[in-house]
Amino acid sequence: MENNTVKVGLVGFGTIGGGVADILLNKKEEIRRRTGKSIELVKICDKDTTSDRGVKIPGGILTDDLSEIINSPIDIVIELIGGLEPARTFVLDFLRAGKDVVTANKALVANHGPELFDEARRLGRTIAFEASVCGGIPILSSIATSLQANTIMSIDAICNGTSNFILSQMEGKGADYDDAVKEAQRLGYAEANPSMDVDGTDAVQKLTIMAQLAFGVKTDWRSIPRTGIDIVKALDIRFARRLGKRIRLLATAKRVGCDTQNQAAPAGVELKVSPTLVPETSPLAKVCDAFNAVQIIGDFVGPVFYQGLGAGRKPTASAVCSDVIDTALGRTRTTFGALNLWSPDRESVPVIEPDATAEKAYLRFKVEDHPGVLAKTTGILGQHGISISSLLQDAAEDGTGANLIILTHEAPSGQLAAAIEEIDESSFVLEKTVKMSVRD
Amino acid sequence: MENNTVKVGLVGFGTIGGGVADILLNKKEEIRRRTGKSIELVKICDKDTTSDRGVKIPGGILTDDLSEIINSPIDIVIELIGGLEPARTFVLDFLRAGKDVVTANKALVANHGPELFDEARRLGRTIAFEASVCGGIPILSSIATSLQANTIMSIDAICNGTSNFILSQMEGKGADYDDAVKEAQRLGYAEANPSMDVDGTDAVQKLTIMAQLAFGVKTDWRSIPRTGIDIVKALDIRFARRLGKRIRLLATAKRVGCDTQNQAAPAGVELKVSPTLVPETSPLAKVCDAFNAVQIIGDFVGPVFYQGLGAGRKPTASAVCSDVIDTALGRTRTTFGALNLWSPDRESVPVIEPDATAEKAYLRFKVEDHPGVLAKTTGILGQHGISISSLLQDAAEDGTGANLIILTHEAPSGQLAAAIEEIDESSFVLEKTVKMSVRD
Repeated sequence: MENNTVKVGLVGFGTIGGGVADILLNKKEEIRRRTGKSIELVKICDKDTTSDRGVKIPGGILTDDLSEIINSPIDIVIELIGGLEPARTFVLDFLRAGKDVVTANKALVANHGPELFDEARRLGRTIAFEASVCGGIPILSSIATSLQANTIMSIDAICNGTSNFILSQMEGKGADYDDAVKEAQRLGYAEANPSMDVDGTDAVQKLTIMAQLAFGVKTDWRSIPRTGIDIVKALDIRFARRLGKRIRLLATAKRVGCDTQNQAAPAGVELKVSPTLVPETSPLAKVCDAFNAVQIIGDFVGPVFYQGLGAGRKPTASAVCSDVIDTALGRTRTTFGALNLWSPDRESVPVIEPDATAEKAYLRFKVEDHPGVLAKTTGILGQHGISISSLLQDAAEDGTGANLIILTHEAPSGQLAAAIEEIDESSFVLEKTVKMSVRD
Repeated sequence: MENNTVKVGLVGFGTIGGGVADILLNKKEEIRRRTGKSIELVKICDKDTTSDRGVKIPGGILTDDLSEIINSPIDIVIELIGGLEPARTFVLDFLRAGKDVVTANKALVANHGPELFDEARRLGRTIAFEASVCGGIPILSSIATSLQANTIMSIDAICNGTSNFILSQMEGKGADYDDAVKEAQRLGYAEANPSMDVDGTDAVQKLTIMAQLAFGVKTDWRSIPRTGIDIVKALDIRFARRLGKRIRLLATAKRVGCDTQNQAAPAGVELKVSPTLVPETSPLAKVCDAFNAVQIIGDFVGPVFYQGLGAGRKPTASAVCSDVIDTALGRTRTTFGALNLWSPDRESVPVIEPDATAEKAYLRFKVEDHPGVLAKTTGILGQHGISISSLLQDAAEDGTGANLIILTHEAPSGQLAAAIEEIDESSFVLEKTVKMSVRD
């Protein structure tokens, strides 16, 4: 890179690309005064070169020809096309053409982290990806640098704004799940097909990235236990409220087995995405609408809580452009070199097998409303060594059978799963049992 | 510095020094594995070389002779003696001996920033100071780097844990101010002489540092309007609650005059420390006990909220050691060079003269309980162009006169001050009038 001017190319000119161009073009002078670097957006590449993106682009910048990015003397390429392919191939091409990369693509980083980071290291290039998790909240740099003197004990993240918006709608208006999804779609908080958001895929991919930074974990996101909010019903919100709780979709990483109180447990990290009943007094319970939030506990810093907008044009552009400035200044190179991300050489905390973890669970059974059913259900739980801390029963809203809500004491996840499987095979069960996590 | 080993000296071995030594000695191997740098704590200097600090120190490290720090081949010196002198002279000595400096000393940075940073630049050295504001919350690095693509619009900080603890005691237990201070002292949250905390000095010095980072402001903290919590009474907490508010000591920096709705106002930044009535639904209202919190609004990122422990051995040590690692890796050098802090060349947003700012105010008058007093008081406010949004009157608890609480609409601070001065000179006024800020 030249001393004081850094040339930037942008690939993928959608909503976020428009925000990034807005910052790089309209704040260029402000950024130069503040950092001493002149950052020049010289090329924007997109198949669509005609739609208005709400930002005025000087002539000669916009192109539909990717080779103009690859063959230009561009220092940094911003990848905003999203998805796995062709994003993966493009990023490899950018690195091989000698460019550093900034990306907001969590699916790409979560799925191809090892390949992309190894290739960047081999070529002496860098990849920055703050915008891939929690948009405007600087959570990755916090884990990677600000909290670097700590052993991270746990991460609890509300990192899918669509899910949190839908839960807020259900909570605030008593809406049922389907109506809340429609409202979220009407207001632009959910896509026409929101399945990756509501089934927990988006959250678990973000968790994979945070777990690599905090614990060196190299695990396939598909192997992490994952439940989305598509199992939550209005009645769960009401039951949770009766218990003094709120339901939030938490992506959780928790170090276990390294404290004196729990020496029998294996040392490692538990990973999970699940709708979770959190106490209404906890900061996580107060995170509403499309906000994201992360609570990190470090052994020295204690609890640190972050909240902000996790998606959208402007917050995501804020994170992307911070990465561009860090890369231009050389800060990314320092961090990238120190962290050795997704490298086989990077120390890793072992991931605890899901069945070997333990949790307090909220269980919702839909059962026939006959004498003896309650005894049978609780009997099966008891046979699997699961003890009950509270129990509620209500007539089902559709007039068929009864809803049985059981909160368990802490129980091994494997035993919980076995008990639920046995109950679900019983003739008195009318619907697949729903399980959520519970926090005190 | 050598390639992979960095030698560190620590000056000031008190509570925080003990935490720093704990991290640097006991996590040395973990930090080396995580960052590739071996950080060696080679000398600790303190007048007291015998007291137990709760951390095992290898022989030959502890000394009471500062020249052992200055004359050793030490790369980074951590200054934890606090206060202005001899800390200022020591830091200058460290820089001149070719050492980079890490400090947790907010008074030093707030008072001597220009001199120290100019000298560091002249000598090609760096100063890092994350721990000087809000302990474990990485708020300075957020302002300086993570949010660097934003124009910062406002900062609201609960940055004095002692004050927040006292307010929480008053709120939770209905305690009066003096009892809450005693409880805070008993539990170690307030010093024997807590005046710098409760009169707002500590908060305003931290505000000065944040304002330099966010706005380039170079202003003497003594010129910033400052009210501490020592004016808050139990009745204020109760009145605030009636209005749906909580009282928090806020250190505030707010950019004004750069939005379309407010073009008449001068462009600049308003700075203030004041007990402030915040809506009970705001995240700031939920910050209790000794926690610190900061809400930053950026033009792109929107609101970002941070909460964590702002003081104490372990959280502060977390921030100090993060700075040590950043300095060892070279990240501090990049940031220090880009930001040009406290330099006369650094662009600065003008500070709005206090009388030219505007605010909604909570006013508590103690007046004689005679007919006509209410009319006189409100009459004087009206003459100064101050309009009232609500009014409460109660008999004073001591049986003398009445408490009159007035919430104003937004009013110029100069007019508010003039009105209060005139009212305080009136014969019917029994105590100096108290003013706090109000947020919708």
